[in-house]
Amino acid sequence: MRTPLCDEFGIDYPIFAFTPSEHVAAAVSRAGGLGVLGCVRFNDTDELEQTLTWLDENTDGKPYGVDIVMPMKIPTEGKSVDLKAMIPQDHLDFVERTLHRLGVPPLPEGEGREGVLGWLHSVARSHLDVALNHRPVLIANALGSPPVDVIEKCHEHGIKVAALAGAAKHALSHVQNGVDIIVAQGYEAGGHTGEIASMVLQPDIVDAVGPDVPVLGAGGIGSGRQIAASLALGSQGVWTGSIWLGTEEYQNLQSNAGWTQAFTRATSSDTVRTRIYTGKPARLLKTKWTEAWAEEDAPEPLPMPLQNLLVSDAHNRINASGDPDVISMPIGQIVGRMNEVRPVADVVASLVAEFEEAVARLNKVV
Amino acid sequence: MRTPLCDEFGIDYPIFAFTPSEHVAAAVSRAGGLGVLGCVRFNDTDELEQTLTWLDENTDGKPYGVDIVMPMKIPTEGKSVDLKAMIPQDHLDFVERTLHRLGVPPLPEGEGREGVLGWLHSVARSHLDVALNHRPVLIANALGSPPVDVIEKCHEHGIKVAALAGAAKHALSHVQNGVDIIVAQGYEAGGHTGEIASMVLQPDIVDAVGPDVPVLGAGGIGSGRQIAASLALGSQGVWTGSIWLGTEEYQNLQSNAGWTQAFTRATSSDTVRTRIYTGKPARLLKTKWTEAWAEEDAPEPLPMPLQNLLVSDAHNRINASGDPDVISMPIGQIVGRMNEVRPVADVVASLVAEFEEAVARLNKVV
Repeated sequence: MRTPLCDEFGIDYPIFAFTPSEHVAAAVSRAGGLGVLGCVRFNDTDELEQTLTWLDENTDGKPYGVDIVMPMKIPTEGKSVDLKAMIPQDHLDFVERTLHRLGVPPLPEGEGREGVLGWLHSVARSHLDVALNHRPVLIANALGSPPVDVIEKCHEHGIKVAALAGAAKHALSHVQNGVDIIVAQGYEAGGHTGEIASMVLQPDIVDAVGPDVPVLGAGGIGSGRQIAASLALGSQGVWTGSIWLGTEEYQNLQSNAGWTQAFTRATSSDTVRTRIYTGKPARLLKTKWTEAWAEEDAPEPLPMPLQNLLVSDAHNRINASGDPDVISMPIGQIVGRMNEVRPVADVVASLVAEFEEAVARLNKVV
Repeated sequence: MRTPLCDEFGIDYPIFAFTPSEHVAAAVSRAGGLGVLGCVRFNDTDELEQTLTWLDENTDGKPYGVDIVMPMKIPTEGKSVDLKAMIPQDHLDFVERTLHRLGVPPLPEGEGREGVLGWLHSVARSHLDVALNHRPVLIANALGSPPVDVIEKCHEHGIKVAALAGAAKHALSHVQNGVDIIVAQGYEAGGHTGEIASMVLQPDIVDAVGPDVPVLGAGGIGSGRQIAASLALGSQGVWTGSIWLGTEEYQNLQSNAGWTQAFTRATSSDTVRTRIYTGKPARLLKTKWTEAWAEEDAPEPLPMPLQNLLVSDAHNRINASGDPDVISMPIGQIVGRMNEVRPVADVVASLVAEFEEAVARLNKVV
């Protein structure tokens, strides 16, 4: 499974793996794909610095990427404490009342934390500055084009820039801003998604940006058949995320049986696209927590970045409690096929083998 | 492009084409696919009888299918006049007020009609009885498994039965009821759809029903690349619908410039999944009509079959007016690629040629 992206990045397979875990990212890169570390969870730049140093040392010299969350238009923002003052009391009350009703205990003494600040532009900028001192080959932006000066700075460092797009017009705009690679994020994807499903979106974007801009198919990719489908649609590779949450290297698994139970039992119908995670539509596992926000008495989610500040402590509480009925987890429709926990290298090997089987099957049809 | 379905049905390509037009159905069958005539629009069984006779005589002896709309559980139903009495006055007022606001004139004198009755079980049964006097090779049911005695009757006549499914558990249930072929109807499809997108749904259903039950990929199929993607996902053929609305043989086009304008200018983002057409979620072109139903003062759509009885006169008025901003049209996300009106034979030839190109491209990747 080789496309021009393999030569461009020095990888064996055009399988890009978004993950919040450096252990997963390193394992994917070692297995021949490109691990892409999600930075949004790093409130502390020193921790990111240490993590990227670890990545530098644990990928056997193979390339890796990083993922930041940065809107193109720089928002007005204060410190997190100022933003918190903008959250209506009704919203805070709803969250507290809902956690109580769902039986989610408070965090143990001393374990509260500040919430996830990576959604703030200033924090994402600091992530970028830290990353530029390491050796990522790709910087991906989950919110579309990053600011033009960020793209230029990456290019000066020889780093390619990828951006997520949920519609052809957004992809075209990213390319005009200087983005190198488009991640065509279909409706079925976990996390932030648009409404156009991959079957339609991938060829839409491939044709809109033309042959010189590589497109990665994203959303619903968990098997080699789906990689073959994406490449048939014209993509040059795939962007995967959900499936790595189900690997042995994903550290949360080892400390949280409820998390594992939640995704292994879920079917493809058990996700929901909602604004409750960040303020923008994102696909999550459907649980009592997402259902509570869909009830009539629930408030409208707040805009980004307020909504994530509102719920991030709640997410910590929910996920620490480990109740699989309540857990808060961004995940795609492919969750229906995540039924066992496997090592990353096994997953990569299966993807490649099944891709080859799918192409062999197609050859019999022609 | 040959799969075992080609031998089973005596067709050249595993391309199944759902269409309300006998002219399109005949042209697809003549071109080597399988035209499937939608029967729901036939209130008058004599008209269906004549149309199927025409099909028998105009497919050059090639096979064709018919599509009925029949729930498995037989609902309590009266005559259409009794059902109409169950429609709340508020709903009738909303429809009338909305049509007035959107500038939709009444139908010309004498052109009103009874609404579409094919949604009624008794009418769908009469469609079946008429069809059995002709030579369809396939009877497809848009609402999942038809009643078991219907399946048995089809089998006695040597006719295969197909049923639409939007989730693996529904597909399994159809197979247990005796259905022969599953149409895996993805989120991106026009008309009735579930929430799981094709990239995930097709392999879900293929694996659930096993190798002995052929699956047709449906939703978002408008090019040979998408056929290759579906076959890569494990489907044995494709079920297409929207793209045939944009063919020269589709009669509506010739008398309605607004209809043509509406779909040629639409992008992949210009559809909406809503209950306003039949009472069950179905994907339509997004227009001022669908938007009116999404406003705060709009009533909740009624259950099937009441909702279609409520709106079918309105649809006649809207579509007769030909205003592309208001038009009522079930259509999939592939509408973004329907940009010109072409003969059916050209569309089929392009699908086949592009499929072969896509497989050749995949072979270079392996």
